[in-house]
Amino acid sequence: MRNIKTDLAVEAHEYYVGDGNNLPDGIEHKTEDYDDVKVTVVDVTNENGKRAIGKSIGTYITIEAKTLKHLTDYERENIEDIFGQKLRKLLEEKGVGGGDTVLVAGLGNNSITPDALGPQTVEKLDVTRHIMEYMPDAVIDGTRPVCAIAPGVLGNTGIETIEIIKGVVEKIKPAAVIAIDALASRSTARVGTTIQISDTGIEPGAGVGNRRKGITEETLDIPVIAVGVPTVIDAATIADDAVEQVISAIKKEGKTEYFSRFDDDERYKMIRSAMDETANMMVTPKEVDTIITDVSAVLASGINKGLHD
Amino acid sequence: MRNIKTDLAVEAHEYYVGDGNNLPDGIEHKTEDYDDVKVTVVDVTNENGKRAIGKSIGTYITIEAKTLKHLTDYERENIEDIFGQKLRKLLEEKGVGGGDTVLVAGLGNNSITPDALGPQTVEKLDVTRHIMEYMPDAVIDGTRPVCAIAPGVLGNTGIETIEIIKGVVEKIKPAAVIAIDALASRSTARVGTTIQISDTGIEPGAGVGNRRKGITEETLDIPVIAVGVPTVIDAATIADDAVEQVISAIKKEGKTEYFSRFDDDERYKMIRSAMDETANMMVTPKEVDTIITDVSAVLASGINKGLHD
Amino acid sequence: MRNIKTDLAVEAHEYYVGDGNNLPDGIEHKTEDYDDVKVTVVDVTNENGKRAIGKSIGTYITIEAKTLKHLTDYERENIEDIFGQKLRKLLEEKGVGGGDTVLVAGLGNNSITPDALGPQTVEKLDVTRHIMEYMPDAVIDGTRPVCAIAPGVLGNTGIETIEIIKGVVEKIKPAAVIAIDALASRSTARVGTTIQISDTGIEPGAGVGNRRKGITEETLDIPVIAVGVPTVIDAATIADDAVEQVISAIKKEGKTEYFSRFDDDERYKMIRSAMDETANMMVTPKEVDTIITDVSAVLASGINKGLHD
Amino acid sequence: MRNIKTDLAVEAHEYYVGDGNNLPDGIEHKTEDYDDVKVTVVDVTNENGKRAIGKSIGTYITIEAKTLKHLTDYERENIEDIFGQKLRKLLEEKGVGGGDTVLVAGLGNNSITPDALGPQTVEKLDVTRHIMEYMPDAVIDGTRPVCAIAPGVLGNTGIETIEIIKGVVEKIKPAAVIAIDALASRSTARVGTTIQISDTGIEPGAGVGNRRKGITEETLDIPVIAVGVPTVIDAATIADDAVEQVISAIKKEGKTEYFSRFDDDERYKMIRSAMDETANMMVTPKEVDTIITDVSAVLASGINKGLHD
Repeated sequence: MRNIKTDLAVEAHEYYVGDGNNLPDGIEHKTEDYDDVKVTVVDVTNENGKRAIGKSIGTYITIEAKTLKHLTDYERENIEDIFGQKLRKLLEEKGVGGGDTVLVAGLGNNSITPDALGPQTVEKLDVTRHIMEYMPDAVIDGTRPVCAIAPGVLGNTGIETIEIIKGVVEKIKPAAVIAIDALASRSTARVGTTIQISDTGIEPGAGVGNRRKGITEETLDIPVIAVGVPTVIDAATIADDAVEQVISAIKKEGKTEYFSRFDDDERYKMIRSAMDETANMMVTPKEVDTIITDVSAVLASGINKGLHD
Repeated sequence: MRNIKTDLAVEAHEYYVGDGNNLPDGIEHKTEDYDDVKVTVVDVTNENGKRAIGKSIGTYITIEAKTLKHLTDYERENIEDIFGQKLRKLLEEKGVGGGDTVLVAGLGNNSITPDALGPQTVEKLDVTRHIMEYMPDAVIDGTRPVCAIAPGVLGNTGIETIEIIKGVVEKIKPAAVIAIDALASRSTARVGTTIQISDTGIEPGAGVGNRRKGITEETLDIPVIAVGVPTVIDAATIADDAVEQVISAIKKEGKTEYFSRFDDDERYKMIRSAMDETANMMVTPKEVDTIITDVSAVLASGINKGLHD
Repeated sequence: MRNIKTDLAVEAHEYYVGDGNNLPDGIEHKTEDYDDVKVTVVDVTNENGKRAIGKSIGTYITIEAKTLKHLTDYERENIEDIFGQKLRKLLEEKGVGGGDTVLVAGLGNNSITPDALGPQTVEKLDVTRHIMEYMPDAVIDGTRPVCAIAPGVLGNTGIETIEIIKGVVEKIKPAAVIAIDALASRSTARVGTTIQISDTGIEPGAGVGNRRKGITEETLDIPVIAVGVPTVIDAATIADDAVEQVISAIKKEGKTEYFSRFDDDERYKMIRSAMDETANMMVTPKEVDTIITDVSAVLASGINKGLHD
Repeated sequence: MRNIKTDLAVEAHEYYVGDGNNLPDGIEHKTEDYDDVKVTVVDVTNENGKRAIGKSIGTYITIEAKTLKHLTDYERENIEDIFGQKLRKLLEEKGVGGGDTVLVAGLGNNSITPDALGPQTVEKLDVTRHIMEYMPDAVIDGTRPVCAIAPGVLGNTGIETIEIIKGVVEKIKPAAVIAIDALASRSTARVGTTIQISDTGIEPGAGVGNRRKGITEETLDIPVIAVGVPTVIDAATIADDAVEQVISAIKKEGKTEYFSRFDDDERYKMIRSAMDETANMMVTPKEVDTIITDVSAVLASGINKGLHD
């Protein structure tokens, strides 16, 4: 397969199929439509599927809206409802019931704007665990104990994110963790418009800030639902797209003998190495501050809807 | 004693003595001068001292500068040096050696400006634990493993701060915790100018945000050094000062029979209850944003100096 | 009259009447109810009224909601609608028609949270003047040319706010200015809950940051509508309330001879001078950051509704 | 010449010469060294020079440090001193004397992080004009009247930036304007490390936010000194570099007949059009928040040094 850098299973699938491959054994793919919102479910069911698109075994639900910012009240509620329902369903499939405590972890660096999606979401979330513990009569029926942390990033804490989360999990014993993270996508059109929910947790190396160790059911011993929205695209992606454009323009002239040597993966590696200098650069929309503000509000509200009756 | 609301032992002591009391058994008090910086050490040595000034048994070191913002390079370095030395000395007296891991906890709510001192300080701190673990050759001699968290506040996390810290402490096993917190003082002159370091940890109910459960050696099983700077004053304090002013003006007229009934404590309670409405109000300097920015930089830099050789 | 510090005409009126005075010639007062929203109109019609409540001749419309933050969509729209209609009506009464250009000025210091209401409101406002100029076909009918500035404060610019606004007004020649400003109120209950609209402009010395020179029809030669929401209360207010409480408790004992000398105004002055030290302090709700965020959104949206069809 | 997108004259010159061109009539170029700081002066002296490197006639002084963030006190002072001296010299060459009023304009959008350099700089600047006017005895000799505005951006104000500045200039009649702006560079190494000072003012279309109309001596009738630091690089730049890399790899194979048709300019245009989708994207360092904080402090302090004795 092509070596593409995306945190979205739906994009990895697109590129696999776009390269002329048939859907392999181990990948299932279906779509649903809700008004202006498109939902895609990609299931990676075995090792063969994992190899094909480079994503762990599990279910990836993608909610694609035209935008997640400057929404009308109606559009916002529609997206929050769909997101909340899908989130609840994934939790239930993992055996997490309506009264079970959930810990929401907002991953990322709150002072790097496009990486602040997780911390900003937990700041806006309704937490209920302490109220249910100290003032049980003050909560209405159907409320579930929800708590939240923003563990920060290794470079600022000196502690692996998984260590902090595991420490808190062992102390308060939730039934599941929901981990919110900013993602990188391949397509500029998906930045700030697409929510991915998956039951795989967060794999090492994913996310804007390159989480170093996995935050998964394997490391935490409880289900981990990952929720993410792309807020950046990879700088190499932009370069790669441009090179592809130029090469195909040249190919159209009919002289292709010199390009047979360049397969896509080789090209990407070459560009990547030519771009070492830009390793610390990120590509974001100009209005990334607004995107983080608006999208974190949608995520917080959708999680509230999904977790309580 | 008078019921005064201050997180500073030096103020509690001042008021005790100012009320005409002699220094009781159980309180020791001494001062040192360093250029424009005054250092006061109040030792509460027994239960009698604790009752007298309402502060736990332990050592309280107060560093008073003319200001902690808009400092010249020289003034800033002087204060950071003094603060770093005092901090190191307290740690050593608690048996924490130069190579031992220290966890710095920045308490408070990062989105309420005057309560953000702790989170802002840890954001500016040099953390080294992960570098010493993954790239031991990259650190110079005399560096100590330092790590840091900003655990957030109960209202935003649904988890007692002590639970988060204890979870992390059990996971990474530091030798001591340094807890940074915004304080309330009685005097407007001490807001943003005074650093208090103590070996007592953080008592329940202290701090701007009213930490609910203690973060102390008793709850964590390792030494806890508390570091704080006043960033607010109590609204009732302002009212109480005004009432005292008016009453003493009346007393000067020579008619005191109606005031014998009002002792200071009764008066404060009366005012407090009259002020229920302002319970959610805080009194801060207008330039509180700048104070937090500048003071957190001084604290972070002083801690760096105190922890590494 | 009592020397009370409030930017709200409705409070000045309340205190005047509360002191046992009859409504004087020169003050008209009426109220309207819209669901949970109460609208009060105070008209100061002559110099006598001005002296009585200490407010310039003109109309003061006060919209009091239970809160302006964390509103449901319905409540928010209701308040925005009422605010927009009242604003439009005041403009029309001043002869400003539907197609006339309006300049919105967001007064205050964007980096002092409670003073940032003006700058935050203009940031969220829809501006249309440049679109109507460069792409007239892109705007729908009923749109009016709206432009906006955040002129900053004297201490940061070295320029009187009126000079900046006058410079811009002479350049772009709007038909009216709407000046948004954070206010001080007497009652904590009105902080973040009450919108005042008036056709008097901004008088010297009003507002959190003490605007030094008036921004009025007199200085700008075009109508100036002032819009404000209380975000702070005066520290002296808190003290004064407490003193009043204590004195009335004493008075209840039946011995009043010593208080005949203290009229309210004298008392306030005495407290004020006793509070010189707190001159630079402000009293705000703890959640003032959220209030500014939410209230500025309500103001921006209400102005949008009031200015366009 | 190659169509390169950079706001730095020093880069435009480098690319011109790097393409194998000799220095044309109309361009003068010299360098100076101060410790770790390199100063380059590019003079564009006539229309021929202007055409060659695509920069207006005038003097461009570039101060290149290894970094402008996390500086030691010594490094920071060195850079501020050099910057201050160069700024003062340019002003003097334009006939602006030590006592003349200077207006500093911080261009850009304060809520888009990499575009906030101008507004953040003026916020940190010492302004003196109002003190010299109202309290002339309070200032020390050698102080000059300095004032400052952050006019915002067309999309937020509905007013061309030049209109706001011109309005204020006509009101307060300064002798010169210093306009601070965030720049785009071609090289990632110059982001956050290079200060450009020029006597040309700000040309239309320059800057991160694409200022639409010039802020120049021609439009304001007084000298305009432009000060800028690159905070972003052009997304097309990254793509173009990658394509160049690939093409030269192919060329090394010895088959060049297909590339004779592609001159550099054509290639850049092709890429640009292929990148329409990324038009709204920007490429910034991950730590852009810190860069803006630190660089704006250096600029403010250097301007203070340059403007007062």
